[in-house]
Amino acid sequence: MKRVSELVVLAVDLGGTSMKGALVTEHGATVATETRVTPENDIVDALIELLHSLEANASAQGMQVVAAGVVTPGIVDEHSGVVKYASNLGWLNKPLLQLLRARLDMPVAIGHDVRAAGLAEQLLGAARGAEEFVLIPIGTGVAAALVSSGETLTGATGAAGEFGHIPVVPGGELCLCGQRGCLEVYASGAGLARRYLARGGTELSSKQIVARLGTDPIADAVWTEAVQVLGQGLAIMTLLLDPRVIVIGGGFAHAGDALFTPLREALTAGLAWREAPRVVQALLGSEAGRIGASILAFRAAGRGDVVNGWPLAVEAA
Amino acid sequence: MKRVSELVVLAVDLGGTSMKGALVTEHGATVATETRVTPENDIVDALIELLHSLEANASAQGMQVVAAGVVTPGIVDEHSGVVKYASNLGWLNKPLLQLLRARLDMPVAIGHDVRAAGLAEQLLGAARGAEEFVLIPIGTGVAAALVSSGETLTGATGAAGEFGHIPVVPGGELCLCGQRGCLEVYASGAGLARRYLARGGTELSSKQIVARLGTDPIADAVWTEAVQVLGQGLAIMTLLLDPRVIVIGGGFAHAGDALFTPLREALTAGLAWREAPRVVQALLGSEAGRIGASILAFRAAGRGDVVNGWPLAVEAA
Repeated sequence: MKRVSELVVLAVDLGGTSMKGALVTEHGATVATETRVTPENDIVDALIELLHSLEANASAQGMQVVAAGVVTPGIVDEHSGVVKYASNLGWLNKPLLQLLRARLDMPVAIGHDVRAAGLAEQLLGAARGAEEFVLIPIGTGVAAALVSSGETLTGATGAAGEFGHIPVVPGGELCLCGQRGCLEVYASGAGLARRYLARGGTELSSKQIVARLGTDPIADAVWTEAVQVLGQGLAIMTLLLDPRVIVIGGGFAHAGDALFTPLREALTAGLAWREAPRVVQALLGSEAGRIGASILAFRAAGRGDVVNGWPLAVEAA
Repeated sequence: MKRVSELVVLAVDLGGTSMKGALVTEHGATVATETRVTPENDIVDALIELLHSLEANASAQGMQVVAAGVVTPGIVDEHSGVVKYASNLGWLNKPLLQLLRARLDMPVAIGHDVRAAGLAEQLLGAARGAEEFVLIPIGTGVAAALVSSGETLTGATGAAGEFGHIPVVPGGELCLCGQRGCLEVYASGAGLARRYLARGGTELSSKQIVARLGTDPIADAVWTEAVQVLGQGLAIMTLLLDPRVIVIGGGFAHAGDALFTPLREALTAGLAWREAPRVVQALLGSEAGRIGASILAFRAAGRGDVVNGWPLAVEAA
């Protein structure tokens, strides 16, 4: 009798720094991971090499690869599979789906990293059961996945969710994007570190700055401002989209109560006549993008239903 | 041979000042209108009286009423038909659908006035063919209908689209809602009139203030600020939702080029790396809410397809 081999997908979270690949089974188990440095040039060649390596790994384990899913930052059109713009990959109108299809003999899905992470948090993580929510990963920069009626909003050009660059302080501090007063100038890892230094502090990471809260007045000042601006941003998000829950991910979320207690207060204080939605920490962490890529891959293979059986993330004790 | 009577719906746009009712045929023709002052008390009784009067009118004309649609301001849950909060109707958790069903022998749809207007602009007006757009009526206050993938966003509690109250100027001028720096403090009919007076002007309507542009420095100053704040708001909307087109309605839209030329400039200047969506004037004007109510009514009757044959609004020459 022929043994029925396990179905797997190739999932890659392609970032400006690293390409995080994995083999994920139809039962949601990650049976292999492979992470490589993202090269400066020929990124697509390197990506395909990684995908082929994962594929070979699956074959060696007797597993059947049914599809591949790749998620990237930037402005991504999921339907056409074109990455319209990704500054940290140096891509402009890169027809990624077409390029991968030409060299992979399987269905391929292209997704946006943050929106894919939102999908993962929605199906398996902190936004479970919410038809209306936003995921806001706050790392070096800030983005957002917006989900309404269970569907992730992509926008007319694939550029929805640029929460980090909404103008919140008219005539405010200059952002790398060229505008003034963007949210992430104040409320991001890079913004916090830059502002700490500008106020006379030393060169510290946002994590180190958070560790000094309560003992370092400069840390307290820039953190308070970050939380205020973020609270303003969450108020804007709440008034426009009316989410059931706001999920905060990325490095900032690791600040725990130092973030969530004053942030919830700021949001509540910023809403006049309506209740604030719940504000909670993401559960899938830095794995969310790759898990999202694997979900997209199973969908591309026509097997999106397998996700119903996957293990759910639980809150750390 | 029995004559087949024309199908009509009862459509009412219920506002704080007036109740605008109409009979709308399956061909999109308004064959009767009836507008009454909204009473201070017993609004539901007055509404039902208006609906019964419209129904009698239809019978007298030999028309067959198939459904009723009523749209209201406030926080409206279209699914349950409950108006959760409407300050200018004095309503809190009003089970409008249930109340109307008990006294009308036909299918009933409850909608939100601005979202219904967005639906009308989408199917028949300025947003025709756009799957991704926002409608922003700017009158005394400011609201918004947000449409993504052709679906109007309602949010988790029916409160999506509160664009007038997004905080855009931290610590800014006080809003009637109790918060500071809301968009409509600066960029609304009431806001403009209030700020014109506060700067030493006389008591004028926003229309009169617009008429003085170029000859009245105070008018120029408050208008410029209104346009800047509105441009900031549209930049926020664009970065979050990535609409194909932004439709501006209400009294402000009648300012024409005095609004649209500087507003488009402000929006373009406020976006760093992406193109601005089109910004256009609404086509259905103050009829949009009632037309939207009639569309919802035909949908409630299971005849939503009739709208495909309705006449399209055209731009004024």
